[in-house]
Amino acid sequence: MEGSDVTTSLLLERRMAVEDALNSLVDKSLKGPTSAAFELIQEVLLSGGKRIRPVLTLLAYELAGGQDLSEVMDFAIATELIHTATLIHDDVYDGAKFRRGVQTIHEKHGLDRAIIGGDFLFVLGFGFGGRYDETIVRVMTETCTLIAAGEIKQLQHIGDLSTSPEDYYEIIRGKTAGPFSSACECAARIAGASMDQVIAMRDFGMELGIAFQLVDDLLDLTGDERMGKPRGTDVHEGKMTLPLIHSLTLLHGDGRRQLAEVLENFREDRWDELESLIEQSNSFNYCRLLIQNHLERALEHLSIFEENEIRDVLGDITRQVMMRND
Amino acid sequence: MEGSDVTTSLLLERRMAVEDALNSLVDKSLKGPTSAAFELIQEVLLSGGKRIRPVLTLLAYELAGGQDLSEVMDFAIATELIHTATLIHDDVYDGAKFRRGVQTIHEKHGLDRAIIGGDFLFVLGFGFGGRYDETIVRVMTETCTLIAAGEIKQLQHIGDLSTSPEDYYEIIRGKTAGPFSSACECAARIAGASMDQVIAMRDFGMELGIAFQLVDDLLDLTGDERMGKPRGTDVHEGKMTLPLIHSLTLLHGDGRRQLAEVLENFREDRWDELESLIEQSNSFNYCRLLIQNHLERALEHLSIFEENEIRDVLGDITRQVMMRND
Repeated sequence: MEGSDVTTSLLLERRMAVEDALNSLVDKSLKGPTSAAFELIQEVLLSGGKRIRPVLTLLAYELAGGQDLSEVMDFAIATELIHTATLIHDDVYDGAKFRRGVQTIHEKHGLDRAIIGGDFLFVLGFGFGGRYDETIVRVMTETCTLIAAGEIKQLQHIGDLSTSPEDYYEIIRGKTAGPFSSACECAARIAGASMDQVIAMRDFGMELGIAFQLVDDLLDLTGDERMGKPRGTDVHEGKMTLPLIHSLTLLHGDGRRQLAEVLENFREDRWDELESLIEQSNSFNYCRLLIQNHLERALEHLSIFEENEIRDVLGDITRQVMMRND
Repeated sequence: MEGSDVTTSLLLERRMAVEDALNSLVDKSLKGPTSAAFELIQEVLLSGGKRIRPVLTLLAYELAGGQDLSEVMDFAIATELIHTATLIHDDVYDGAKFRRGVQTIHEKHGLDRAIIGGDFLFVLGFGFGGRYDETIVRVMTETCTLIAAGEIKQLQHIGDLSTSPEDYYEIIRGKTAGPFSSACECAARIAGASMDQVIAMRDFGMELGIAFQLVDDLLDLTGDERMGKPRGTDVHEGKMTLPLIHSLTLLHGDGRRQLAEVLENFREDRWDELESLIEQSNSFNYCRLLIQNHLERALEHLSIFEENEIRDVLGDITRQVMMRND
């Protein structure tokens, strides 16, 4: 098999292991005292999604020397439960109608059940994380408080044309890169890795997560369709992503004024105008370059680990984030 | 000083210790990376409330032999953070305008910030609880999943006239008595108490919590004003509380039909009719008797601890729940 085939089949295996663990959690719990809560969240939880966080967790654990996937599986599941909790709550206040191809909980069962369902998944996630030592719980809670802080900062900057690149980085570190980073860090800790390896994993996750969100934000402007999310969602919501921030910073005079006006009064028929302004400041290319840099740094952090199949897979995943960007 | 004066001053001291800890948490955090989240929740968190859970935690710890309140304070704070998180989220879907005398977060800052603010407090609470050993985290997460399960069950039974006393007990154990019980249990564990004492504390908290919620539900029908909550809130919302469930079970024929009709079409001018139907089945007295039983059992659980000032205070608190009912 070629490298990418090995990657594909290994990723599929790990993903299936995650799916199995999630399925068995739900199956087991549909009889217990929290069955009504599981009935509520099972559809969204079990409707796929990419499972990036738990799969990354398993691979980071293995590369850091972990020998028994069952040792880290509870933590991997915790990352997915907490991620799903944030999606359920995000969807409530974004008014989203679908998630992972199924109706959102608030659409199907109402606001009250969506809020409680999200809370339930948060708590369940902490329950799974709480089976590990104090450091893991500390990293998890810190990560989750920074998710909330990042989301609040993002709300504060909605429609704020003076948002700086530093603001943007703080937001995406909190809401996306932090969870990637702490998943990788904790996986290495659970594997009993050396402190150097724990730090390398943490930093790998952070760089990968930043690149991942940068790509997502770039695709909002350049892509046709992202995982069922139509192009321009961020622009319509007034979210200040890096291509816009960069363009607003670089353009002067009439160009700057025109871009501000387009963003403040965006409509579907103004795509060409928006794109051409962003091209003027070369902001798409600037973002592509930044993504490249973050991914190269991610690969550098991987390089301290011994060369093996798992390292190749994590390298392939990293390079795939780059390709998503093409 | 007489017994009740000792109680009053000791309770005030413990409550002030809780307020101090909460104030210093917020003060310290208003400069850190989560400052925006703290700014959002500080008003509701610091606007008083009865602080029953953390005060109970401190007293349970002391009665179970704990010598150093600072050892249990983080856990006590965790109970209040998580309780406040549930209040913020409850208020969102109940559409409440005020909480603890101040505007609710969703009213003042919008749905998105209220959901994230509640999430933030949940996570923060788990962070404080996570400083203790695995058993504490396990009890906390179990308690919180049962809060969610209780709330979902309560929603499922809105307006359901066939709700049984068993359903009712499951709901109030989950949402109210469970948190009281686990606060007392964990406090005893943190104090290093014997297993007998841990169990006695857990059961004391459960009985007290059940009585507490029964009184609250009774006051919804009989009281004038409960902590700024107008009489009849539950009836208007279609919540099936025990006096109603008992009355629906005991009444037959026309009485049962009339009660069902009143509940389904309740208006403020139908209070006398509702009260007279509930009196017909003697359901207020039945509930008062039940409350008495739960409180007596709570006192029995206390009796295994040595007699001292703290036991007297916990006894007084228990008897005060009874008096609230008069």
